[in-house]
Amino acid sequence: MDDAAVQRLAERVRAGDRRACARAISSVEDEVQGAEALLAALQPLAGRAQRIGITGPPGAGKSTLVEALVVELRRQGKTVGVICVDPTSPFTGGALLGDRIRMDRVATDPGVFIRSMASRGNLGGLAHRTLEAIDVLDAFGFEVVIVETVGVGQSEVEIAEAADTTVVVVSPESGDGVQAMKAGLMEIAQVYCVNKADREGTDRLVRELEAMLELAHRHDTTWAPPVQRTVAMRGEGVPDLLAAIERHHQHLTSSGELSRRRWRLARERVREVVERTRQREFWTDARRARLDSLASEVEARTLSPYAAARRLLES
Amino acid sequence: MDDAAVQRLAERVRAGDRRACARAISSVEDEVQGAEALLAALQPLAGRAQRIGITGPPGAGKSTLVEALVVELRRQGKTVGVICVDPTSPFTGGALLGDRIRMDRVATDPGVFIRSMASRGNLGGLAHRTLEAIDVLDAFGFEVVIVETVGVGQSEVEIAEAADTTVVVVSPESGDGVQAMKAGLMEIAQVYCVNKADREGTDRLVRELEAMLELAHRHDTTWAPPVQRTVAMRGEGVPDLLAAIERHHQHLTSSGELSRRRWRLARERVREVVERTRQREFWTDARRARLDSLASEVEARTLSPYAAARRLLES
Repeated sequence: MDDAAVQRLAERVRAGDRRACARAISSVEDEVQGAEALLAALQPLAGRAQRIGITGPPGAGKSTLVEALVVELRRQGKTVGVICVDPTSPFTGGALLGDRIRMDRVATDPGVFIRSMASRGNLGGLAHRTLEAIDVLDAFGFEVVIVETVGVGQSEVEIAEAADTTVVVVSPESGDGVQAMKAGLMEIAQVYCVNKADREGTDRLVRELEAMLELAHRHDTTWAPPVQRTVAMRGEGVPDLLAAIERHHQHLTSSGELSRRRWRLARERVREVVERTRQREFWTDARRARLDSLASEVEARTLSPYAAARRLLES
Repeated sequence: MDDAAVQRLAERVRAGDRRACARAISSVEDEVQGAEALLAALQPLAGRAQRIGITGPPGAGKSTLVEALVVELRRQGKTVGVICVDPTSPFTGGALLGDRIRMDRVATDPGVFIRSMASRGNLGGLAHRTLEAIDVLDAFGFEVVIVETVGVGQSEVEIAEAADTTVVVVSPESGDGVQAMKAGLMEIAQVYCVNKADREGTDRLVRELEAMLELAHRHDTTWAPPVQRTVAMRGEGVPDLLAAIERHHQHLTSSGELSRRRWRLARERVREVVERTRQREFWTDARRARLDSLASEVEARTLSPYAAARRLLES
């Protein structure tokens, strides 16, 4: 995209053109020429949307819950953008989960926009591209943006930090793997959701979560994360879950924490762009070739990685 | 550590002093002054150990399996260094799993050295510090180094790339979370191990894994990952598992893949040291302060992250 094309696309996004919105996200995802200028053009319009993160182990019913949340938000008259982050293997780029989001009930609603993003073998880049896609949906004018992620990877943590409120979803049917994962997910949540709450073991799981929450030494003593129960498949408990998310958002706004969070996020994003740019500038073809030959010396143990790095830095 | 202290410590490690080995790993883990020089001094001695990675979901019995492998390797007369990577939350540094490795049966054997490493809130740094600790154990003279990691994070993948052979351990008792995790772990394994193979569901799990392996399009068509069965608690199947690991190592050596793998690893390590050094040099106090104030403009949406980054890069 040349500069004129960028401005035209930004204009169409601002005017509420859904196809332009989809194209803008693709530009960001594919990191095409002009994507940075596009984001800069959309930037002044972003920052108004409420950002909700939904995460949890596979099998907890996150996609069904996201769909139920979208239905409820639409009932309240709010427009919703959804980003489903689909982690793919860093080895082949194959999808971790085949049966991702369908969301039949909301897919044709003009007040809803659903988009999947894949990591494409670059977990490091996933977080920043997701944050930029959120910005596009925000600039487009969606009042709520929901980001669904799976698991407890570093990317998920970074994405969770971008949400105003992160909901961790678990289900009573999960095995010991999930028990352990819960511990890792514990501290990124402001709201807990026990989904499939009509199944056996729900009461025990809710008690366990509440006990964990009591034990956890939390930095933020002004907000006690609630544990909500839902049966997302039938929409049960979803209005209450949304009310809990809303209460947390009110808490963020009134305490000033929302702008502090967004400042920290802005700082990380600037830092990340700086790092990326510096890397791109440093790794010229000549330096890459030099790295390859120095690697041979390191592999032969005639040079330490530190000495090799010094030679590259001095070149 | 000043230069003389570094040389004395390196000398003691080379001489087989276990306490020096422990101290060298601590120096690397804490990134103390002199750690780089120490690694450079030990470097020429490393590269001889066979490196085995053991990974898999929580609850698969990895620690018990590692202990059983150590017992079997000792029976074969080999010395073994073990590193258990303990992922901690990036938020509070709290341990994900409280009940880590005990390994009572081998803890007092002078031919065995066991060390836990924690991520200390910096998942990005975990991989390089682990690789450096492996180098210390390798330089010390352990014939086999086993690295145990949990989960499917980016760090685990990086650590897996450092092992000559990665064994993915699963157990038949795991729930759907584990089913999904298996997919993520699939492609980093050269050997599969179904542990707790006396439990119900073992045959089904082995069949599932073998079906997955047949479907998977693997780059390396010269090695078909075997699925081994173990009951680590009783040592059953452990000699066969070790024989499968040995066959893979032979395959790596005879095909020339071992030195290619180690060359790629060396290249990544040099690249990583370069990046780290450049970051340290760039982020002076003045630039950090400037970043803070630019973040405020980005948060207020008067500046895009890209424009802010440009100002920092030009400063």
